[in-house]
Amino acid sequence: MKYSHREYFFNKCSWYGILYITFLLVIIAPLGVNAQEAKTKKPLIIKEQGSFAAGGTVKTSPGTFDPIEHGAFNPADQPTEGQSLHGDHAFVFYQVPTNPRTLPLVFWHGYGQSMKTWQTTPDGREGFQSIFLRRGYPVYLIDQPRRGLAGRSTEPTTISAATDDQLWFGIFRLGIGTEFYPGVQFSKDPEALDQFFRQMTPDTGPLDIEVNFGAVSALFDKIGSGVLVTHSHSGGQGWLTALENNNIKGIVSYEPGSNFVFPEGEVPDPISYVGGQLSARGVPMSEFERLTEIPIAIYYGDYIPDEPSKYPGEEQWRAALSMAEQWRDTVNKHGGDVTLVHLPDVGIKGNTHFPMSDLNNAKIADLLSDWLEEKNLD
Amino acid sequence: MKYSHREYFFNKCSWYGILYITFLLVIIAPLGVNAQEAKTKKPLIIKEQGSFAAGGTVKTSPGTFDPIEHGAFNPADQPTEGQSLHGDHAFVFYQVPTNPRTLPLVFWHGYGQSMKTWQTTPDGREGFQSIFLRRGYPVYLIDQPRRGLAGRSTEPTTISAATDDQLWFGIFRLGIGTEFYPGVQFSKDPEALDQFFRQMTPDTGPLDIEVNFGAVSALFDKIGSGVLVTHSHSGGQGWLTALENNNIKGIVSYEPGSNFVFPEGEVPDPISYVGGQLSARGVPMSEFERLTEIPIAIYYGDYIPDEPSKYPGEEQWRAALSMAEQWRDTVNKHGGDVTLVHLPDVGIKGNTHFPMSDLNNAKIADLLSDWLEEKNLD
Repeated sequence: MKYSHREYFFNKCSWYGILYITFLLVIIAPLGVNAQEAKTKKPLIIKEQGSFAAGGTVKTSPGTFDPIEHGAFNPADQPTEGQSLHGDHAFVFYQVPTNPRTLPLVFWHGYGQSMKTWQTTPDGREGFQSIFLRRGYPVYLIDQPRRGLAGRSTEPTTISAATDDQLWFGIFRLGIGTEFYPGVQFSKDPEALDQFFRQMTPDTGPLDIEVNFGAVSALFDKIGSGVLVTHSHSGGQGWLTALENNNIKGIVSYEPGSNFVFPEGEVPDPISYVGGQLSARGVPMSEFERLTEIPIAIYYGDYIPDEPSKYPGEEQWRAALSMAEQWRDTVNKHGGDVTLVHLPDVGIKGNTHFPMSDLNNAKIADLLSDWLEEKNLD
Repeated sequence: MKYSHREYFFNKCSWYGILYITFLLVIIAPLGVNAQEAKTKKPLIIKEQGSFAAGGTVKTSPGTFDPIEHGAFNPADQPTEGQSLHGDHAFVFYQVPTNPRTLPLVFWHGYGQSMKTWQTTPDGREGFQSIFLRRGYPVYLIDQPRRGLAGRSTEPTTISAATDDQLWFGIFRLGIGTEFYPGVQFSKDPEALDQFFRQMTPDTGPLDIEVNFGAVSALFDKIGSGVLVTHSHSGGQGWLTALENNNIKGIVSYEPGSNFVFPEGEVPDPISYVGGQLSARGVPMSEFERLTEIPIAIYYGDYIPDEPSKYPGEEQWRAALSMAEQWRDTVNKHGGDVTLVHLPDVGIKGNTHFPMSDLNNAKIADLLSDWLEEKNLD
């Protein structure tokens, strides 16, 4: 005799039926909840998106271009007479949500990185690009000159393709050697680490911070007022850009590493650490004062030692955090508004050098949202 | 005596008043229409967006990495012992609209280019990325290995920064030398040409088409079925990828330039042209047949001469179009479904080597939409 499901339950209710219902509740119901969670992530409503080059220069070779003699592609020995090269621009991809907030967020990556820093995280979740779009901010993602999609450089270079993943594993504070730090906010799925390593992308010309901040300043000339969000190597470049461009109405810097700018006469001694030395820059007080006129937030993650460590990967951040504290005090002494948050000190543990893409990046984004609101930058 | 505007019109209606009204109608009204058009462009509704690396390999150096001795960044001479490099992947940025069509469009750029090819046009309008999102297609934009955001290469290279804008002005068929072709579908605003030149981005490793189609094939393994859209140098690489991967359900190729694949024994003679020679590839018939199983569309633009020209920039496309015609006939003879459209032959004039970003790119997109519908790929 065969039963339909309905008959099974309602005419022949038995232990098998109870087991069946239990199966449904224990196995199927949670799947339903997860599916619902995934489904309830709302669509992004984009009023406008696009990309463009900002800033840059044009290099020209003397002579006259001959489209008959020199018009064939000859990769081995291309004649250059009378030709130009447009290079040293930044590349920008932007998205503006509907009903946008007034000030866009302009995201600038760090050393060896690109706009990818702010996109999907290594473990496949939303990065700051989409998170802040959802929160109503226009977002601009930069590839600095001679990096990523801004690859065209006016100066030649060589790319070595040297193996260095483990060096960056340490400097980016995922761990020591090949071992993750205990409690680190980074997925242990090997695919996440694979994706993280593949975020690296080389310089396509000599790294030149004046070229870089020139192009980013040109971007702010084009888009008007905005908040600059920097990471690591772009931290110092961000201060220098703000000295040049009054359209920068606030700066958020994740783990700035170098080029701290002090008034001449107040430049602190270099900080020595295992593996190097961190020096500061001096500028005239009249220029420095610009940095006292805008709100600035700085965040550092976890695993930065208080005392000298034997690991250079940690050491350079001990120096950077110490320099950043002196810098905060100097800017604030001159009337500025710098907030420095060492995340473990406010109970947020396990962050690497990339808080914007760590497992707790939604919480890191909340801190930024709160600060933007507090400073009327939202 | 002074009049208000109202008094002027209603109490003192005169020839001046009529002229004023005419001015309003002729000058102001069209501005209003344009403004309204811009405003009525609907927002993009994105269900999901993000980026990831696809394919690639890992290179390792022998020895053991020492995070104490070798953990400091030393750009001049970084020890590599025991370290890895993850490279040779493609970089992919994707967007999926709400209620998406079944098959995504996967866009692959040409030589010297990047995913930018499919983004905002040089004159600032929407490119195929946003146009096809609006038409309901999931879109995937590729940077092929060793280009753009997929910059990490396992092989070293040198970037020369040689001036070559005018070479590409010719090969990309904007014109001859520095003069635009008459009637070319390219903005005469100098800013558009500036943006166009800045789209170029160099190889960050040796160009290797096996590395390239391996990574794009890995992308199709990851995302499943889709339609591959190629341009120029990726045209030939696209046929090779389709030989490897059955998830490619159709191919659209804008101005394929090389690597046409014929059955062994049916490979045509090389085509000589001013500046070079175009050869075809032979593969076993068992492999070739794959190309007869999917619909394929090929489009070429304007300014391709029928007869040999003295300008190499035009000549290579005369050879490519001629080879493409032979290829279409061969694939179709073996039961395939190749449609080749030389745009001027269907009355669409003035297109450069970049129909997807030319001034009439909406019309070019319409052709693609129609073809996708006709072939049940929508």
